[in-house]
Amino acid sequence: MSRYRTDDIIYALATPWGSAALAIIRISGSGSHALLAPYFSKSEALRSAKNATLLHGYLCDQEGRRIDEVVLAVNTKGHGYTLEEAVEITCHGSLSVITELLDLLSSIGMRSAEPGEFTFRAFLSGRIDLTQAEAVHELVEAQSPVARAHALARLDGGLKEKLNGMKNTLLALLAPVEVQLDYSEDELDEFVFPDELLDSLLDDLGRLLASYAIGTLYKSGARIVLAGATNVGKSSLFNLLLKEERSIVSPVRGTTRDYIEADLLLEGIPIRLYDTAGLRESGDEIEREGIRRSEHLIGGADLVIHLLDSTEEDVDRAFDGRTIVVYNKADLRRPPEGVLAISAATGEGIGDLLSEVARRLKRGVEGVDESRIVIQSKRQADALLAAEAALKGVKEDLQAALPLDIVAVGLNEALHHLGLITGEVTPNDILESIFSNFCVGK
Amino acid sequence: MSRYRTDDIIYALATPWGSAALAIIRISGSGSHALLAPYFSKSEALRSAKNATLLHGYLCDQEGRRIDEVVLAVNTKGHGYTLEEAVEITCHGSLSVITELLDLLSSIGMRSAEPGEFTFRAFLSGRIDLTQAEAVHELVEAQSPVARAHALARLDGGLKEKLNGMKNTLLALLAPVEVQLDYSEDELDEFVFPDELLDSLLDDLGRLLASYAIGTLYKSGARIVLAGATNVGKSSLFNLLLKEERSIVSPVRGTTRDYIEADLLLEGIPIRLYDTAGLRESGDEIEREGIRRSEHLIGGADLVIHLLDSTEEDVDRAFDGRTIVVYNKADLRRPPEGVLAISAATGEGIGDLLSEVARRLKRGVEGVDESRIVIQSKRQADALLAAEAALKGVKEDLQAALPLDIVAVGLNEALHHLGLITGEVTPNDILESIFSNFCVGK
Repeated sequence: MSRYRTDDIIYALATPWGSAALAIIRISGSGSHALLAPYFSKSEALRSAKNATLLHGYLCDQEGRRIDEVVLAVNTKGHGYTLEEAVEITCHGSLSVITELLDLLSSIGMRSAEPGEFTFRAFLSGRIDLTQAEAVHELVEAQSPVARAHALARLDGGLKEKLNGMKNTLLALLAPVEVQLDYSEDELDEFVFPDELLDSLLDDLGRLLASYAIGTLYKSGARIVLAGATNVGKSSLFNLLLKEERSIVSPVRGTTRDYIEADLLLEGIPIRLYDTAGLRESGDEIEREGIRRSEHLIGGADLVIHLLDSTEEDVDRAFDGRTIVVYNKADLRRPPEGVLAISAATGEGIGDLLSEVARRLKRGVEGVDESRIVIQSKRQADALLAAEAALKGVKEDLQAALPLDIVAVGLNEALHHLGLITGEVTPNDILESIFSNFCVGK
Repeated sequence: MSRYRTDDIIYALATPWGSAALAIIRISGSGSHALLAPYFSKSEALRSAKNATLLHGYLCDQEGRRIDEVVLAVNTKGHGYTLEEAVEITCHGSLSVITELLDLLSSIGMRSAEPGEFTFRAFLSGRIDLTQAEAVHELVEAQSPVARAHALARLDGGLKEKLNGMKNTLLALLAPVEVQLDYSEDELDEFVFPDELLDSLLDDLGRLLASYAIGTLYKSGARIVLAGATNVGKSSLFNLLLKEERSIVSPVRGTTRDYIEADLLLEGIPIRLYDTAGLRESGDEIEREGIRRSEHLIGGADLVIHLLDSTEEDVDRAFDGRTIVVYNKADLRRPPEGVLAISAATGEGIGDLLSEVARRLKRGVEGVDESRIVIQSKRQADALLAAEAALKGVKEDLQAALPLDIVAVGLNEALHHLGLITGEVTPNDILESIFSNFCVGK
């Protein structure tokens, strides 16, 4: 990972690129205070600043002309985000000011940071482990309060501690095995492998793996398509759902002749909702194309809400397991007993529909305690699966009374995979793929 | 201006709305530290914080659940942007975190700030005058380093000082006149009005007014259209100009069948450059519409670069004063002597063309010293014009030997208009129109 040097000073804009009241430019690296000081109106104050102080003044270009009035937040070595000597510049959120300040930092010998490089330095300095580094990215990208809370819990070190606990258990399993291997049998008491410790570790692993379903549900959310014939009330229901659950409702985007879509939150789950064009038979070529696209949309949905019209005769149709069949216009004519009935006109039955949608989305994660440490990274889930497989192999080896050196190999393999998650033994290409997903300035 | 209360606590997101490494939420108002403290993990540290300190910790919701890890930059009364008790929260730049933090601040009784309200409080507290308040907005909106430098000079108080100097001169003119009016003639020595002081004040006013042309040139920039027949090389020149002057070049936007456009900087002047479709005769209805739009574009341009083809016979055409006529393809055939000749293929003559464009744009502002205090606000220019008119009236009144009470009215009127600029006597509706242009959080 040659692009990650750590002996130089990096900088990046840490707020979005756009006009606003304020912007933050981050700087980190040994010698950054002294390098920036000549361009700050209170040079000596910056050179001698204590940790966690604010300095108000002006940053000037190489000819001494003022670029902007700024506030510097100063961190000394051993503190702050990276544990390196660092400065955060709060300047006016002017594109011209930002451009000139970034140009200045580059021209005095600082380097524009790679994506995730500040967090990478925090990882290398030992302030955070890899699960926390990933949590920073997941926190920024979180689309719902639940995903945000899960990410923050990992950032606080919750997952790190849990994994460290598992690794300690593994070491407690491995140590007596290694002792047995180092000495001949007649020097030692008879060895009994602590099966119950292995079983409890496998239980822990299984629970953590099960949390992945929750993590992805709240992180990636679900795609829900409203389907049904023309005039069955899909658009009325679409608008009603946006109004009911408006915690985070995006403006409806991209009205095409095929469908419209909007984002909303349902019980903390980010939902993208699609309202399809009426799925009717048509001789018109363009309309047939629109219908084809709607069917494609339905094919990729996590859930389909299929609307039927209570006032019309029953159509005997088969729906797949992803589909919730709903009778609309229940205010006009009583629908059959036992079906889900709503009125998009009066709002009747909408609460039941939303509960049913949430129940369906959470199917498979019911038993899992949501307030626990939850994983939401495929990389972490894959490593946990590999560790679980290795430990199951150990269990089989023990049952087959295979030699202890084979058992030791399995335990070491599990340890290796847990170490991959926290970053102790993580190869460079994995690190590269993790941090390159970050935004610059993080 | 009832919407501007100052006895409550306001908050706003001060960085752009979008995912990024960091975001800043600003809070200002008496009692803000105590109100926020229960939701901060280090409550006591916040309550007792000294000015200009950084506090690292967690902000929690009303149920005590952590929302995010944050750094608080604390200002006590008498310091900081507004001179009020204030906090700046630096949090992760997550839309979910920002939403939840803003919700928290609202739910504990703070008020979402109006546009420009932080700057308005800085103005009311006397930390800045109205020229500085306007400069904050102009600085954020600045599209070029020159406009940015002009705005910063005003923010630093340059214009305020200049206006205060003028007001002092006016008072020095007014005082002896008032004395004359208060006493009968026989109690006083003979009165001689200081004409040279009035003339020098009029000179100062004139120079400041002349700077408005510079201010608007660098602030608002110019629209330049590339015109000419098909295949004369407009698109090659368009691309070459973007490459030559790439200090700030926006991605080319909105390719339509009519024209393409891009932003660049020429000698610090923000330029929007348009490449029109070929202006040729056509029988095709849609193409005629395209040509009609190109001609509309040319009609609204500050400058037109009209390309001719050196390899073709001269067309005798008349161009208006906004047009620079340029012979392209000079590498293929020598164009006539004395004309501006370029080769978009080889780059020959492009430097001359750019100099000519800059010269034309700066026509009318040549004599004005750009490094001086420059105004760029129509409001300020209008008030200066009114003050100048009042003083010219005073000069005429004196020449016509009109009574001193009429002279006093003119001097007071000039003083009033200068006071409008700095905000001493500014009516609420003017304040309202100034601050409502601000972005929220400023």
